[in-house]
Amino acid sequence: MHQNAIAAPLGGFAPAHFRWDVADGIATVTLNRPERKNPLTFESYAELRDTFHALRHDRSIKAVVITGAGGNFSSGGDVFEIIEPLTKMGAADLHTFTTMTGDLVKEMRACPQPIVSAVEGVCAGAGAIVAMASDLRVAGAGAKVAFLFNRVGLAGCDMGACAMLPRIIGQGRASELLYTGRFLPAEEGERWGFFNRVVEGGAALDAAREMAAGIVAGPTFANGITKKMLQMEWAMGIDEAIDAEAMAQAFCMTTGDFTRAFNAFAAKQKPVFEGN
Amino acid sequence: MHQNAIAAPLGGFAPAHFRWDVADGIATVTLNRPERKNPLTFESYAELRDTFHALRHDRSIKAVVITGAGGNFSSGGDVFEIIEPLTKMGAADLHTFTTMTGDLVKEMRACPQPIVSAVEGVCAGAGAIVAMASDLRVAGAGAKVAFLFNRVGLAGCDMGACAMLPRIIGQGRASELLYTGRFLPAEEGERWGFFNRVVEGGAALDAAREMAAGIVAGPTFANGITKKMLQMEWAMGIDEAIDAEAMAQAFCMTTGDFTRAFNAFAAKQKPVFEGN
Amino acid sequence: MHQNAIAAPLGGFAPAHFRWDVADGIATVTLNRPERKNPLTFESYAELRDTFHALRHDRSIKAVVITGAGGNFSSGGDVFEIIEPLTKMGAADLHTFTTMTGDLVKEMRACPQPIVSAVEGVCAGAGAIVAMASDLRVAGAGAKVAFLFNRVGLAGCDMGACAMLPRIIGQGRASELLYTGRFLPAEEGERWGFFNRVVEGGAALDAAREMAAGIVAGPTFANGITKKMLQMEWAMGIDEAIDAEAMAQAFCMTTGDFTRAFNAFAAKQKPVFEGN
Repeated sequence: MHQNAIAAPLGGFAPAHFRWDVADGIATVTLNRPERKNPLTFESYAELRDTFHALRHDRSIKAVVITGAGGNFSSGGDVFEIIEPLTKMGAADLHTFTTMTGDLVKEMRACPQPIVSAVEGVCAGAGAIVAMASDLRVAGAGAKVAFLFNRVGLAGCDMGACAMLPRIIGQGRASELLYTGRFLPAEEGERWGFFNRVVEGGAALDAAREMAAGIVAGPTFANGITKKMLQMEWAMGIDEAIDAEAMAQAFCMTTGDFTRAFNAFAAKQKPVFEGN
Repeated sequence: MHQNAIAAPLGGFAPAHFRWDVADGIATVTLNRPERKNPLTFESYAELRDTFHALRHDRSIKAVVITGAGGNFSSGGDVFEIIEPLTKMGAADLHTFTTMTGDLVKEMRACPQPIVSAVEGVCAGAGAIVAMASDLRVAGAGAKVAFLFNRVGLAGCDMGACAMLPRIIGQGRASELLYTGRFLPAEEGERWGFFNRVVEGGAALDAAREMAAGIVAGPTFANGITKKMLQMEWAMGIDEAIDAEAMAQAFCMTTGDFTRAFNAFAAKQKPVFEGN
Repeated sequence: MHQNAIAAPLGGFAPAHFRWDVADGIATVTLNRPERKNPLTFESYAELRDTFHALRHDRSIKAVVITGAGGNFSSGGDVFEIIEPLTKMGAADLHTFTTMTGDLVKEMRACPQPIVSAVEGVCAGAGAIVAMASDLRVAGAGAKVAFLFNRVGLAGCDMGACAMLPRIIGQGRASELLYTGRFLPAEEGERWGFFNRVVEGGAALDAAREMAAGIVAGPTFANGITKKMLQMEWAMGIDEAIDAEAMAQAFCMTTGDFTRAFNAFAAKQKPVFEGN
C-alpha cells in the first residue's frame, strides 16, 4: 500500500451530502441544508459513517469539527425523507437503518481524532446524538438540544443515548431528557456538563476550531490513545483499567513526542509535537 | 389468562401498608404514617416490592408517583420496628431482610413505568434509597436527603446505593454522602443532579404529577423500552450498547405510536399516543 | 502472628520520602520537598505504594489525609528525576514504572481507610492523580489541578484517569481536561464535583482533617465496607450490585457498632463506635 494512501486517504475528498474543509490538520464537517435546518438523510448518515471510518487511516487530519450551516446544528432525521419511509418498513429494513445510524456513532468513537461539535440553534434528534457522540461540545448562546425521540413515538435508546448521555450529565438528568424530549438550553447544558463552553451566538464554530487547534498542537498520537482508552475503559473495573493504562502510557513513553517535550522543557522552550 | 388480568391486574388494589390512588394512568403511592414521618416496616417493604412487581403486568398504569403524607417523604426503616429486631437476628434472617429491601429496588427498576418521587421534608435511609431508585425526583424547598446508614453503624452499601448514587451525582459527591451520612438540602441536590426540579415547599406532589402526566401523554410502550435500556446498558461497553439500541429502537419503529406521530406531524397536529 | 502486628503494623513507621504523622486515628501523608513543589520520584512512588498496602492491615489507622508542604500539593513526576530517565528506557523498564505508579492507585483504592486529599496551590500530573484517587478532596482557594500528561507528550490515560475522572466529573468535562491538560481552578472544580469543598487558601489541611475526624468517629469497619463496595460495583450491573450489597449490609448488621447505634438511639444518646 502506498505510504501516502495510509497517511492521507481523504486527500481531495469531496462528499456529496455535507461540506468538508481541511485546514491546519482540522477537518470541518458542515451539515449543509440550511433551509431545512440540516436534517440527516439515509445518504448523509451513510456518508458520514464512511467518512469517520476513513479517518482512522488519515494521519494528516488530527481533529474534527462538526457544525451546521445557517445558524442551526441539525434538526435530526428528516421527517419526510426518513421518518415516513421508516413507518412503512419491515423488521429487516428497520434494523438495517438503526444499525447504520448506530455505526455512525461507533465510527465517531473509533477514529483517533478528537471531535468537537460547534452547536448553534436547533440540535435535535439524531443531531443531538451527533453532538453527544463528539468528544467536546461548544454552544453558541441560544442553542438548544433535544433528545426528542419520544416526541415521535420512539424510545430514548437511539444510537447509544441510554449509555452515553448518563455518563455525560448524570443518570437523573439524562432520564429526564430521554423521557420528556424537552429542549435543554445552552446555559443549562453547560451547567450540567453537556457543553464544555458557551460562547456568544454565532461564535461556536470559531471557539470549536480554537479548541481543536489546541488539541492539534498537542501530541496527536497520544491524543488518539487517550480517546481509545476512554472508550476501552467504559465498562472495565478500576484495577483492569489501571493495568490497561500502564501498558498504554508506557507505549506512549516510547514516542518521539515524549522526548521532544522533555528536551523542550530542559531548554525552557515550548515543545513542538510531531504526532509520533 | 383473562385479557383484563394482563391489562390491569392492580384494578381495585387496596394495599394495607400505604395509600394507593390511580387516576389518569398515574398510580400514586403515599407512604402514610405521618406521625412517625412515614417509616418503612417489614410489611411495607414487602408490599411495596410486590406492588412494583405487579406493575410489570398492568398496562393501564403508565407512570408512578411516590410521596409521603404530612410533609415528609420517609424517615426510612423504623428504629423500633426494624432496627431493633435486626440487632437480634442471625445471618440467614438478616440476609432475608436485605434481600427483600434490595428486591424492592430491583422491582422499581424492572417495572416499565417511569417513577417520579415527590420529596418534602425528611427523606432518610431507606427513604433516600426509594427516591434514588426512582427515575425522576422533585423536591419541595426545605426537603433534605440523607443516606444516613453510617449514622446507625452500617455501611453505605444499602439497596444499591454504591452503584446508583455515583452515577446520579458523581463518585466524589456520592462518597461524601455515604461516608458522612449528612443531609443534602434540596437546592444543593438540584445543583448536583439528584433532584430534577425544586419547587416551593408543599408543591412537590403537584409538580411530580405534572411530570408524570407529561410522560403518560407520551408513547408509553417506548417509554418502558427507554427504562429497560437504561437498565440493560448500565455496565455494557459502548459498542454493545449501540447494538442493543439498534435492535430496541427498530422494534419501536414497528409500533402504531411511531406511525401516529408521523401522521400527526404530516397533518400539523399533536400526536395522540396509545402505548402500542 | 502477633495480634499487635495485625492491629498496627505501621506503629513507629518512619518513611524516607514523605512525612508521616498519626494522631487520633488519622494518618497524614505530607509530600515534603516544598522547594520543588513536592514532586514524586521513583522512590516516593514505591514507598507510597507500600505504605497504602500496609494500611490494609493497620486497624489503628482509620482515615488518611494527604497533603503537600509549603503551599502546594504536588507538581507530579519530577522532570529530571523521572521524566528524563523515562525518555531513555526500553519497554520492560517503562512498563515496570507505569505498573508501579498504577499500583499506587490500586493500593489507595484497596485499603479500607477513606482518604481525604487537602489540596493547595499546584496539583499537577501524578499529583492530580493522587487527588483523584482519594475518596474525598478539599481545596484551598487558589488551588489548581491539571491532568497535564498531554503537555509532556503523553496520553491522558495515566494511573486510571480515563476510568476514574469521567465518573467524578462527567465524560465531557473529563475529556476536556485530558485532551487539553488545562488547569482547573478550585472553584470550578467544586462546581464540577471534583472538590467536595473549597475553603480559604491555607485552610485545606484543617478542613480535610475535620472531614477525616468525622469519618473516624463513624463505624470504621462499615466505612471500609462502603469503600470496598464502591470499588467492587464500579462495572457491575444494577441487579448484581444490589445482591452484593444485600450480602455486605447483612454482614455489617452483625457488628457491635450496629447494636451500639441502636442502643444509643434508644437511650437518646450519641453512639460511640468501636469499629467492630
